[in-house]
Amino acid sequence: MKYGIVTERLISIKDRDFLAEISMFVTVDNKADSLDIVLNQIVNSIKASSFEDFSEALINKAHNYVKNAKEIEVSISADISLKRRTPTTNRELEEMYKIISKAVFKDGKIKKMIGAEVVGITSCPCAQEGLIEYSRAKLREKFSESEIDYIIANIPIASHNQRNITRVLIEVHEGADINVVDLIDTIEGSMSSRIYEVLKRSDEVDVVLEAHLRPRFVEDVVRNVLIKIIEKYKNLPDNSLVIVRSESFESIHKHNAIAERVATIGEIKEELKIKL
Amino acid sequence: MKYGIVTERLISIKDRDFLAEISMFVTVDNKADSLDIVLNQIVNSIKASSFEDFSEALINKAHNYVKNAKEIEVSISADISLKRRTPTTNRELEEMYKIISKAVFKDGKIKKMIGAEVVGITSCPCAQEGLIEYSRAKLREKFSESEIDYIIANIPIASHNQRNITRVLIEVHEGADINVVDLIDTIEGSMSSRIYEVLKRSDEVDVVLEAHLRPRFVEDVVRNVLIKIIEKYKNLPDNSLVIVRSESFESIHKHNAIAERVATIGEIKEELKIKL
Amino acid sequence: MKYGIVTERLISIKDRDFLAEISMFVTVDNKADSLDIVLNQIVNSIKASSFEDFSEALINKAHNYVKNAKEIEVSISADISLKRRTPTTNRELEEMYKIISKAVFKDGKIKKMIGAEVVGITSCPCAQEGLIEYSRAKLREKFSESEIDYIIANIPIASHNQRNITRVLIEVHEGADINVVDLIDTIEGSMSSRIYEVLKRSDEVDVVLEAHLRPRFVEDVVRNVLIKIIEKYKNLPDNSLVIVRSESFESIHKHNAIAERVATIGEIKEELKIKL
Amino acid sequence: MKYGIVTERLISIKDRDFLAEISMFVTVDNKADSLDIVLNQIVNSIKASSFEDFSEALINKAHNYVKNAKEIEVSISADISLKRRTPTTNRELEEMYKIISKAVFKDGKIKKMIGAEVVGITSCPCAQEGLIEYSRAKLREKFSESEIDYIIANIPIASHNQRNITRVLIEVHEGADINVVDLIDTIEGSMSSRIYEVLKRSDEVDVVLEAHLRPRFVEDVVRNVLIKIIEKYKNLPDNSLVIVRSESFESIHKHNAIAERVATIGEIKEELKIKL
Repeated sequence: MKYGIVTERLISIKDRDFLAEISMFVTVDNKADSLDIVLNQIVNSIKASSFEDFSEALINKAHNYVKNAKEIEVSISADISLKRRTPTTNRELEEMYKIISKAVFKDGKIKKMIGAEVVGITSCPCAQEGLIEYSRAKLREKFSESEIDYIIANIPIASHNQRNITRVLIEVHEGADINVVDLIDTIEGSMSSRIYEVLKRSDEVDVVLEAHLRPRFVEDVVRNVLIKIIEKYKNLPDNSLVIVRSESFESIHKHNAIAERVATIGEIKEELKIKL
Repeated sequence: MKYGIVTERLISIKDRDFLAEISMFVTVDNKADSLDIVLNQIVNSIKASSFEDFSEALINKAHNYVKNAKEIEVSISADISLKRRTPTTNRELEEMYKIISKAVFKDGKIKKMIGAEVVGITSCPCAQEGLIEYSRAKLREKFSESEIDYIIANIPIASHNQRNITRVLIEVHEGADINVVDLIDTIEGSMSSRIYEVLKRSDEVDVVLEAHLRPRFVEDVVRNVLIKIIEKYKNLPDNSLVIVRSESFESIHKHNAIAERVATIGEIKEELKIKL
Repeated sequence: MKYGIVTERLISIKDRDFLAEISMFVTVDNKADSLDIVLNQIVNSIKASSFEDFSEALINKAHNYVKNAKEIEVSISADISLKRRTPTTNRELEEMYKIISKAVFKDGKIKKMIGAEVVGITSCPCAQEGLIEYSRAKLREKFSESEIDYIIANIPIASHNQRNITRVLIEVHEGADINVVDLIDTIEGSMSSRIYEVLKRSDEVDVVLEAHLRPRFVEDVVRNVLIKIIEKYKNLPDNSLVIVRSESFESIHKHNAIAERVATIGEIKEELKIKL
Repeated sequence: MKYGIVTERLISIKDRDFLAEISMFVTVDNKADSLDIVLNQIVNSIKASSFEDFSEALINKAHNYVKNAKEIEVSISADISLKRRTPTTNRELEEMYKIISKAVFKDGKIKKMIGAEVVGITSCPCAQEGLIEYSRAKLREKFSESEIDYIIANIPIASHNQRNITRVLIEVHEGADINVVDLIDTIEGSMSSRIYEVLKRSDEVDVVLEAHLRPRFVEDVVRNVLIKIIEKYKNLPDNSLVIVRSESFESIHKHNAIAERVATIGEIKEELKIKL
């Protein structure tokens, strides 16, 4: 039987308090100790320097209480606010992100993952292409092909765009740490554009322009995140697992579109080689 | 004390079953009968021809059980699917909407309201204007002002756009009924564009084009709904209350933007006169 | 890449319409067709006699559109209202349940599952035991041990109890169908007690009494469901997968407690044998 | 038109950072400035010593930006963790609560409110009474009336109980401050029992016992909160508004039961006098 608890606790990471949502699942053949008691004994005693180390420490300490555990899973998520600067006016803002971490004990080994959930914008490549064709047809009544090329190349043709949530989890090992604030930056830079809580008009123009210069389906966002992970985190061993999931709140539909990739660093490297 | 129950029930409107979320609140000086018992005695006995009549009947029957009630409030919401046709390819689709109704007994009188919640798209007028200025500047390097005017007038310049939820409730009286399917159509037609569950590419071009020809802030959506209500429902007396609320899931921000207007038909007519 | 869509559609099961939440995920090496278009082409053409057959048909038809799919997953959930009778006063009620279904195409084979989500009550065995000890100590001041035994055996000693949601999914094969209405009854009967939207006082006494005669942890609910499945559905082959998950909204804690068992019919039979 | 924004920000109260959900609504005759810009200009500049002062400061500063505002409403909610001790074993725990605040500018005046949302347990008086009758009947076969009285008075007879959320908002004026941590304690003490994230068995017995010695409907919780507010906060003027709302996740029903009271301190005092 697998026993679980879903709860909220204050946890301490690098001497800073975070209000975290924690879920812990323990699989045992027989009856487990009450997980709330287990969690309480250990959660305040852990001082970790990262969320993934916290998750790992939680599993190790839980193991002391539930000795016969065949499997232990821990998931943690916490809000964090980071300073950002608006693209044109360069004013400082606070933006909210979610740090996530997961650790699993199974077959005598612990796998720990660090990640984040980031909100941004995607604009649709397909609709934009259709509107470029439409625009070319309209312009043909008055302009030459080379003039039309100039126009299309220089002004932002409309597309539909929407709020997107992209979530990444990466398995980490000793000596291959990932700074989660840097990872948030990586994810944010993989969407059609970063978004901001407050934008003056010149900033707004900049963000919309950027989003239309980089139209991306959800699967493009996933692919971009994967490419950047391979480029940036060269210490990650080939057997590290990566999970990337991107979801768009489609503005021209009532439904959401999702893309997801679960693969090892080795598998992704192999794929990227073929695509070269 | 105000007593309330929030529950889900099958209700019958025009011989058709709807799974409805119902909340009922009763204000009495002393102890009220159990509202779940009251609701159960009456909910299956009501056969109404509209959601607002159902709400009114619920209040009248509840009153027989809770004779000393000083106030009774009923809110009902149910999903409905309507047939739609895609704009260009003219294929038939099912689209989902939410019918809402509210009735309040107070000071011896019952006020009943019918309405709906509709999902659509808004595109931002402000960002589009900024991008038109940007485009004009870019085009000036190569084209004359009259050529630029032609270009801007004929091709869809980008803006940010996003999913929007608009919710309307209108007070109705005998002889001034409102067909809720028609009201859904009115709300849907007040956004930057209607949206669809499935769009072939030519439809998609059409929807995005429409949305960029009609850029609208949330307050514009509210104003458009109000203007159409005045035009279409001429039988509504001046003292009928109208509530319109529009919320956009901003694609360039993590926050939502909201506009809301609560006014009588008379007040809105007065305002619109001034604006002429 | 895995592509997904999450949406709401009207579906037809045994000539009856259900408003269903549908999610469909397709894994392909290259780019997938738009899943909303795929879903729309097929969802209205399916007339199935059960939710699991509907899910299977959805996968088969999706396969015609996405020929290179390596994996297809479909999840469906829909509300259903069933007639129930109150335990003592025997009055008829409508109670709400959720039917769920899941089908997965992988390695050339389709696995289809049917299930349900049911809300009931659990009362805690541990707290009740503690309160029985407390009561015995109190009674010892005035009564003999045999009198105390009589009292404890005949009157319901308090415990904490709470709302519980239990969810079951069972893999089905041809010739081993499961009637989902019967399965809902099985799940409901595995909790401390069934619950009802409306209870007269004598019914209420009956429900609370029942719940305290059958105190159950979440893991007991899971175990009871598994035992009943083995007893009732004798045609299920040993390789059929069963997923049972029970979650209690603990009334003496702010957190939820969960138990889950994922196993084949064969594994469960083996375990039950050992426990005999 | 009423303009609104719903967002998340870090705010500073008594030199401590809270991640707060903030909504701000501004009613103007004409077009309002963008509320996200307004909010951003002011939110970081406010250093308040209480949530209600923060809300008031937000309104005052917003007024400088939106001079023609006819109405401004601000709502703030933030999680807080407080130290608690388990009832029997006296071990220290962290428990989570929600601080809420609301301020409204209207007709030239600001009304500010402070409050909290607390999770606890309610046990049902009606079901318990029914089960006491049932128990008396059972005991009559073997015991005298006086013995039965002793038994019923000394051992906890079962009832149904469940998670309850109670929410309070109180209007405050200069010189009549309310400490919100003290208010949380007041609300928590008005339920059938406080609840805890972790309980050893002897604590659990204590909590369940307490809950069954104080069976309470949602309306009883509301009444108890009101009585305690009158007793404790003697400085509150008679025109201070109080809103108390209690909602139980009924364990024997699928629906929730709610009671609410909106009244001034003066009205409540009047009512309590009559009841004496």
